[in-house]
Amino acid sequence: MSRQDTAAVPAGLPATVTAGEALARYLHAQAGDFLRSLRLHSESGADTAGVAAAARALRQAARRISGTLHTFRPLLDPAWADGLRTELAWLSATLAQEHACTSRLGRLLEALARLSGATPLPPARGEPGALETAISGPVAETPRNTGTLTVGAARAGALLERQLTLARTRAHSAALQALGSSRFHAVADAVAVLASELPLGPASDAPAAEALALPAELAERRFQEAVAALPLTRAAHPYNAEALVHGLAAASAGEAQDAPWHQVRLLLRLHRYAQEVRHPKADPVLCRAGLVLDRHRDAAEAAAAAATAARTPRIAPATAYALGVLHADQRHEVEAARFAFQQVWQRAAAVTAP
Amino acid sequence: MSRQDTAAVPAGLPATVTAGEALARYLHAQAGDFLRSLRLHSESGADTAGVAAAARALRQAARRISGTLHTFRPLLDPAWADGLRTELAWLSATLAQEHACTSRLGRLLEALARLSGATPLPPARGEPGALETAISGPVAETPRNTGTLTVGAARAGALLERQLTLARTRAHSAALQALGSSRFHAVADAVAVLASELPLGPASDAPAAEALALPAELAERRFQEAVAALPLTRAAHPYNAEALVHGLAAASAGEAQDAPWHQVRLLLRLHRYAQEVRHPKADPVLCRAGLVLDRHRDAAEAAAAAATAARTPRIAPATAYALGVLHADQRHEVEAARFAFQQVWQRAAAVTAP
Repeated sequence: MSRQDTAAVPAGLPATVTAGEALARYLHAQAGDFLRSLRLHSESGADTAGVAAAARALRQAARRISGTLHTFRPLLDPAWADGLRTELAWLSATLAQEHACTSRLGRLLEALARLSGATPLPPARGEPGALETAISGPVAETPRNTGTLTVGAARAGALLERQLTLARTRAHSAALQALGSSRFHAVADAVAVLASELPLGPASDAPAAEALALPAELAERRFQEAVAALPLTRAAHPYNAEALVHGLAAASAGEAQDAPWHQVRLLLRLHRYAQEVRHPKADPVLCRAGLVLDRHRDAAEAAAAAATAARTPRIAPATAYALGVLHADQRHEVEAARFAFQQVWQRAAAVTAP
Repeated sequence: MSRQDTAAVPAGLPATVTAGEALARYLHAQAGDFLRSLRLHSESGADTAGVAAAARALRQAARRISGTLHTFRPLLDPAWADGLRTELAWLSATLAQEHACTSRLGRLLEALARLSGATPLPPARGEPGALETAISGPVAETPRNTGTLTVGAARAGALLERQLTLARTRAHSAALQALGSSRFHAVADAVAVLASELPLGPASDAPAAEALALPAELAERRFQEAVAALPLTRAAHPYNAEALVHGLAAASAGEAQDAPWHQVRLLLRLHRYAQEVRHPKADPVLCRAGLVLDRHRDAAEAAAAAATAARTPRIAPATAYALGVLHADQRHEVEAARFAFQQVWQRAAAVTAP
């Protein structure tokens, strides 16, 4: 999960370090992770788990580099920073698809098993062992054996497995193609020379402590403002039924409702990465909030996948019914994640309040 | 709603009143309500709302008489009390069906409209105006106009309307038949002479204050023990996903999970009615808890009706999908009611704690 504890970020910013040097140091560490992951990825071969882990590490490094280029753009050559960010975004998006399909399928099959009473319910939040479950999701193995499911649940599972496996295969091909492309090699080259030839702007000669503060504070302010605009009062009331309010309406209505939360998730990342450049210590509240927002995103996308599967022509009513239950279940997971985010946030505010 | 404020219950139990006299006084008031409702019911004719209100009042009085006969059985002629209770239970069950079908259909159509984004979301608990909504359910009119619904939601609504209207028509005929039967006239006669010819047991000569206490305390203890056996720790954690854990399993699994809550609802009534005999004041915590448990029962039955409708042969997949979403929505209402019950209970415990 979060890697900032182990990444070789500067262990403090002495007054003699310039902003350019601090950025170069952070980006150097991330570029090292990027290139190491890339080598592991090509060396892992048939080791699927190894390939997946390497791809995940590659995406993590790419996100951190991209975020740093975005936040500290005023200290860099802006045209160069924008160009590399575009390429890193393309790479991240291409590599993310396969993992997204795998984890979405796992989430949906696990939910189907739970809804069929085939797996034990994870402990509720606040019960022993609940925190880890709340943050990382149930640890139960994805149930491949659908023998204990009802006909509808089993058929829905088989349909989702077909559709998401197909999507994953396509994503895998696209990722392989991307990794073999000249476009990708250009990105890898740019990352390799990132630290040694960092195209800095004129303001980067200022002491790091002050020059990095302003962009980092801007990133934090954008995040805080986006959080303040969230409907947290509603989210604080359990079972407010908001996430499912468009459960049978057009898909776009649900997406519009989710968008501010997804936006906060992205702004939280930018804020976290900007913090990492300046402070090697991870902020546990941001880590927790980030994981809860990941869960929000995952549940929203799983709910959408169930709704999409239900529009497959000529499916049996029992299959469609199971997909409807599954969709609603995942939308409630969305609502639960909003509630959890509000709880994390409220507790953090209570701690920092005078 | 609750009628104990207006019912002519004894305004206190002076030491000179015997248990038999106190019971006769309370039963006399309830028998009066029963007979008055019966007259209103037959006089209302084509006034559907009047007939429904009269039937409701009739059932309320029947429940109170039956509950009193049950709790204070040791002070009465047991064989007579058991016999009349059986007959009142038959009458209540027969009269309740029509109302249950009507309110279930209203609840399901309202949920479909909400899930389609066609009606505004009621305020969340804790938001202004939320308490009334939490207790009495949304006040929005049942949406008969399904023009704004998606195809699946509209078809699901039409299917539910067909099925529940048919069930209601059957229930109406059964109720009319029951009210015209000699069995019913025997019950009405028994109620009419209830107060004047109350078949008391030997213990009923004791002062009311002490002789009524023991049976009433037993009713309270049974209720408290049933509450203590509820999974309230789990219910206290919002979004614990328990109510939907058998959402795709056999219906009996869900029913087994609901049974202890339905049992608490019945024991709460017996406890309340026993309190009414002794104290004219209503206990607001019991009123709230009772309404929340009514909501639990209504949502559980609505969820079951959606699942039953989904098993109709030859329905379209879109209809089945909408019914699946609806089923899950109502099961979450079940879970929300459990959470609300736990909240009411916890707050009451906090108030009465030393």
